Amino acid sequence: MRALTAWAPEGIPDIRPRTDLVSVIVQALRSGEPPADGDVLVVAQKVVSKAEGRVRHLAEVVPGEEAGRLAERSGKDPRLAQIILDEARAVLRVRPGLIIAEHRLGYVCANAGVDHSNVGLGEDWVCLLPVNPDESALKIRRAVGDAFGVDVAVVINDSHGRPFREGTVGVALGTAGLEPLLSFIGQEDRYGYMLRASVEAVADELAAAANLLQGQAAEGTPLVVIRGARFIRGTSVTGKLLRVPEKDMFR
Amino acid sequence: MRALTAWAPEGIPDIRPRTDLVSVIVQALRSGEPPADGDVLVVAQKVVSKAEGRVRHLAEVVPGEEAGRLAERSGKDPRLAQIILDEARAVLRVRPGLIIAEHRLGYVCANAGVDHSNVGLGEDWVCLLPVNPDESALKIRRAVGDAFGVDVAVVINDSHGRPFREGTVGVALGTAGLEPLLSFIGQEDRYGYMLRASVEAVADELAAAANLLQGQAAEGTPLVVIRGARFIRGTSVTGKLLRVPEKDMFR
Repeated sequence: MRALTAWAPEGIPDIRPRTDLVSVIVQALRSGEPPADGDVLVVAQKVVSKAEGRVRHLAEVVPGEEAGRLAERSGKDPRLAQIILDEARAVLRVRPGLIIAEHRLGYVCANAGVDHSNVGLGEDWVCLLPVNPDESALKIRRAVGDAFGVDVAVVINDSHGRPFREGTVGVALGTAGLEPLLSFIGQEDRYGYMLRASVEAVADELAAAANLLQGQAAEGTPLVVIRGARFIRGTSVTGKLLRVPEKDMFR
Repeated sequence: MRALTAWAPEGIPDIRPRTDLVSVIVQALRSGEPPADGDVLVVAQKVVSKAEGRVRHLAEVVPGEEAGRLAERSGKDPRLAQIILDEARAVLRVRPGLIIAEHRLGYVCANAGVDHSNVGLGEDWVCLLPVNPDESALKIRRAVGDAFGVDVAVVINDSHGRPFREGTVGVALGTAGLEPLLSFIGQEDRYGYMLRASVEAVADELAAAANLLQGQAAEGTPLVVIRGARFIRGTSVTGKLLRVPEKDMFR
């Protein structure tokens, strides 16, 4: 029978700038069920970003003219608008309270991923996305592989809103050790009809499944282990998940 | 420790028009681990639609003028274009090989949900979305509740593409017994910062998690049981997941 299990190891301490996140993860895994070949470790973006020092203090930001205009249109703090502009390669939509931007790495999301929640340094601090989430994932994959002698995949996840549907869902920002897309094209369905267009964003579905355990409030469960998921091992290019603007009909 | 398990009960036979799907599901659950209070049953849209007779034969369709134009723009069979128009309340984007439409129930997806794969009646048959997926979910919820004396939630899921990101992910078309959205607004994060915008589309994440076990090829695992997921019981209004066009910045 096909089955999967997912759990959130306990005992992960507060993650601050310069916390050695990789060691924290290895330690948390040592204290519980050890990882096995084929497990997927899903790690919340927020702790990756914080450990990598990807935080900024609004007090240290001098907003430029463009940020001033963006602040006016959105009703946001001009200093926050400046940070969003620093992170974005394009601002796609603005309305009061909301800025949808294309992050420099290609993700389309609110505020180019700049976020106030769960930063823990004070009201005026915000957190940015990791510089290279694939590399962050690879470091964790290697450290866990070295510590336990197992081959695990890693997904760095975040919660993003999306067009057409309310609410956020977990998505993959970075991956290591798995192909983010699983293509069924050329395979036959159970009646012999050849599938022509089926490509499943497995990394995003793993990110969403983990999000069910991570929560967004005070739970503090940034690490989830998923065992039994079907995926194809591969070298990580999470960029494959991001549709290039020229091919996107809704940008 | 927070944990969830998900499995795909075996022994689900081929579902055809007029198969009693509810009985098939109860039977499959009887043959394995019985359902428990708080379990979520995720059922693939395709088997729901087929059991409800939501299939159409292209040979019986006479395309109108609008369908002819849509067929020309998309390169699709005019009869298929007619069925898509019958299912849609708006066509949002068209390009060769692809029609993105808003289904009458509000979902924005390829071909208004009209699909060739896993129909099993012949090359010229297509499957439509269920008429009322919330009601379909409720029937399953009640039947399983009656048969086992348990309170389960039900999600009818499908795989949809989305703007900005490649690949499809599982999404909820219909639900029963759970609130599709889980709001954290007003709660504090682990540092006492009050969350202002966090609303998680739990039903979609459950749909995505189940999709990891369902597959899109010949596996034939349309039913997945998820145990241990955090959700709020509630009366089902899956429409809550669908952003109204006036509030959508990308339509």
